[in-house]
Amino acid sequence: MAPEPATTQDPDTMDERVSAATRELATFVSRTRTEDLPADVLHESKRCLLDFFGTAIGAVHEEAPTIVARTMQAMGGQPQAAVLGTTARLRATDAALVNGISAHVFDFDDTHIPTILHPTTPLYASGLALAEWRGGTGADLLAAHALGYELSARVSVALYPEHYDIGWHMTGTTGTLGAATASARLLGLSPALMPHALGLAATQAAGHREQFGAMTKSFHAGHAAEAGLLSALLAEGGYVAAPDSLEGRRGMFSVMSTRSTPEDLTSGLGDRWEIFRNGIKPYACGVVTHPPIDSVRSLGSEHGVRPEDVESIELQVHPLVAELTGKTNPLTALEGKFSVQFACSIALIEGTARERQFTDANVVRPDVRSLMSRISVVPSDQVPHEAAIATARLTDGRELTIRVDAATGTPGNRISDEELQEKFHDLVDGILGRERAELLATRVWQVDRATSVADLIAAATPAG
Amino acid sequence: MAPEPATTQDPDTMDERVSAATRELATFVSRTRTEDLPADVLHESKRCLLDFFGTAIGAVHEEAPTIVARTMQAMGGQPQAAVLGTTARLRATDAALVNGISAHVFDFDDTHIPTILHPTTPLYASGLALAEWRGGTGADLLAAHALGYELSARVSVALYPEHYDIGWHMTGTTGTLGAATASARLLGLSPALMPHALGLAATQAAGHREQFGAMTKSFHAGHAAEAGLLSALLAEGGYVAAPDSLEGRRGMFSVMSTRSTPEDLTSGLGDRWEIFRNGIKPYACGVVTHPPIDSVRSLGSEHGVRPEDVESIELQVHPLVAELTGKTNPLTALEGKFSVQFACSIALIEGTARERQFTDANVVRPDVRSLMSRISVVPSDQVPHEAAIATARLTDGRELTIRVDAATGTPGNRISDEELQEKFHDLVDGILGRERAELLATRVWQVDRATSVADLIAAATPAG
Repeated sequence: MAPEPATTQDPDTMDERVSAATRELATFVSRTRTEDLPADVLHESKRCLLDFFGTAIGAVHEEAPTIVARTMQAMGGQPQAAVLGTTARLRATDAALVNGISAHVFDFDDTHIPTILHPTTPLYASGLALAEWRGGTGADLLAAHALGYELSARVSVALYPEHYDIGWHMTGTTGTLGAATASARLLGLSPALMPHALGLAATQAAGHREQFGAMTKSFHAGHAAEAGLLSALLAEGGYVAAPDSLEGRRGMFSVMSTRSTPEDLTSGLGDRWEIFRNGIKPYACGVVTHPPIDSVRSLGSEHGVRPEDVESIELQVHPLVAELTGKTNPLTALEGKFSVQFACSIALIEGTARERQFTDANVVRPDVRSLMSRISVVPSDQVPHEAAIATARLTDGRELTIRVDAATGTPGNRISDEELQEKFHDLVDGILGRERAELLATRVWQVDRATSVADLIAAATPAG
Repeated sequence: MAPEPATTQDPDTMDERVSAATRELATFVSRTRTEDLPADVLHESKRCLLDFFGTAIGAVHEEAPTIVARTMQAMGGQPQAAVLGTTARLRATDAALVNGISAHVFDFDDTHIPTILHPTTPLYASGLALAEWRGGTGADLLAAHALGYELSARVSVALYPEHYDIGWHMTGTTGTLGAATASARLLGLSPALMPHALGLAATQAAGHREQFGAMTKSFHAGHAAEAGLLSALLAEGGYVAAPDSLEGRRGMFSVMSTRSTPEDLTSGLGDRWEIFRNGIKPYACGVVTHPPIDSVRSLGSEHGVRPEDVESIELQVHPLVAELTGKTNPLTALEGKFSVQFACSIALIEGTARERQFTDANVVRPDVRSLMSRISVVPSDQVPHEAAIATARLTDGRELTIRVDAATGTPGNRISDEELQEKFHDLVDGILGRERAELLATRVWQVDRATSVADLIAAATPAG
């Protein structure tokens, strides 16, 4: 068709065809001063950082990141950024790709509850790699996360649920815009350059839900990080995108959704923060099993019930629980993640249900099997998906009923910083060793005072 | 939601959940022997190769590939493959990206006429880089193109026009599948591994038509080459995609189109070849102007009409011509591409309308302006878009009418190998010098006998 105009960008002047919403977002993301960001927003970003290190480091030896790291190493690059949890260093875009895949492999990374976006993985996978390569203080990194979270969550809200229902994997699509935002912020792009970064990201947004259940699902999260970072670098270099890449007639919103609510992009921008709708997963399995796990854990932690005291437990749950996690005879760790009976049994026996509870050995342990046989699942349309009711009959004749209304880790029931750090250690200690993991956690809690991310990265690298 | 299974690929056994069509395509692409490909198919692939070198080398110093090459060089990589027309070498995926962008910048690359896919750019941008890095004979390269063309054109036919009408840029989307196919073929992937390469490519397919008119349009073509190549490399490395990534419930066809005709994927596979519906552009401007340019050129070449003989020319054309190329007062080379009067005038005066005719100087030349003022455009619904009627009144009182039914370069009016080479020289001589350009053309015509692509690449590299 028509050849493209050779127009060069003017970094100081916003193209007048940029839509009002994109203009406002671009200015907000580029111009908001880090010191003006609310402290509680930045604290959430810090929590997300610790959770990101946990999920990324914990899964780094899994097959998906290993294959991709090996493929990229064969093509080489400057050693600009660490593969977290290893001594390998790749060029920044490759590190973003691999760390983004790692952090999503266990499906244990955080969730923007209203849209099922996993926001943090693309944000920190790109932002950390870029900050390591090109510089940036700890506060810069937190601000890049907070602003990237805000933008990608708002775009997600503007497109949800139609975009998701068509079959797009939110983390792959709007996650790319988040990574571009975080990266552009760290690069200090002007408001006028921001729409080019967002446009390049929007037109690379990708990832089909058909890949759920395959290794390629986690590729989407890494791809979002990589493509977003590249978009910001290209915009910095002068690459030109269409002025209205989001809301234009053939832009992302129109092409990738049947409906959108662009007013959600900017309504209350700077006053209310999407990051307060973040969920952090306490258990290493599908989010629908979390309310019943909570209910069974409470039997032990609040009522002193031991496995051998249980005659039977009846779980009233949302119908999706049985549909998605109804395996009654799991034979592997992975199948255990799809068995609500196993997850609840191990949670009562070991006190929690983190990654280390889901092992091939645990799913066939006689004591676990015995308890599983005493747990029944009753699907009920009356139970919302964030709730569950456990009714336990004990061997001494007592009957206890526990009702969970907001599962642990959701905004209505936040996990504490201490609980978050426990999850982190559970994932990381086996890779880095306890001492180094503690050092890393300490540095994360103090990251707002760090003049660079070098000490963070050093602590995320195993000795030797 | 659910964590992904750690299932490793078995390169010898096709997953039984792979759809029948994907299975047939995978086997066809993987198992068809190069020596069994029809000679006329391979000759078309050879013509496409010459045209690819022309468009990629001719535009290599344009802003888009220059910015991207500079960005990738800052991140580094093994010097695996050439940026065609330069002495720079990048890692294979970067070379695929940059060469793919170059080859699309002038919008002068070939077209699968029924679907407006620009098939060759992603195919050779990925295939050449991979063959240079990992090895492959000239015949291997041609076969990879022919089979990649077939697959990407068939997927395009299965999705056209709904997929395009939604706003997807075909070259960015189905082009990714083409590049994955060509790359997987060159890597010798088994039929069982092919669906993983295609699945990784499908879930990365991207590019919105909103970017038409911006530099990012050509990024799509490079991105398709890069993402397709990476998909094949990851599949080779053992990365696992969903078994039914194209036709599955949340797969590419369902997510990215409102309608598809999967029967087009395999109907007559191996008997009829989509490459015979390829168009090669003879003129460096929008394809709608090609019929009127042909009609005016014929006045000169067939009837000896000189510009000064013309009293007036009336062009009856499809309404799109005036809509897309109706600029009557172009002031720059780029605007000249959107002026059918300029394109026809320069074509009569200089005998053609290639890239070198579209200059800032030419659009304001007095003789050109004079002839332009004597050309009028009459839109008519009666004229198909591949046709035009020129009625010339000459100063000697004669009236001539020229009717064009199939524009030069379309399947109904193929350009000869000699004309193709003229186009090539027009693009390349200024970059490589005439002698080297002739050497490159000679090597392309003999590529089926080459034991590697090294000599091709050497000839595509400027001296010193």
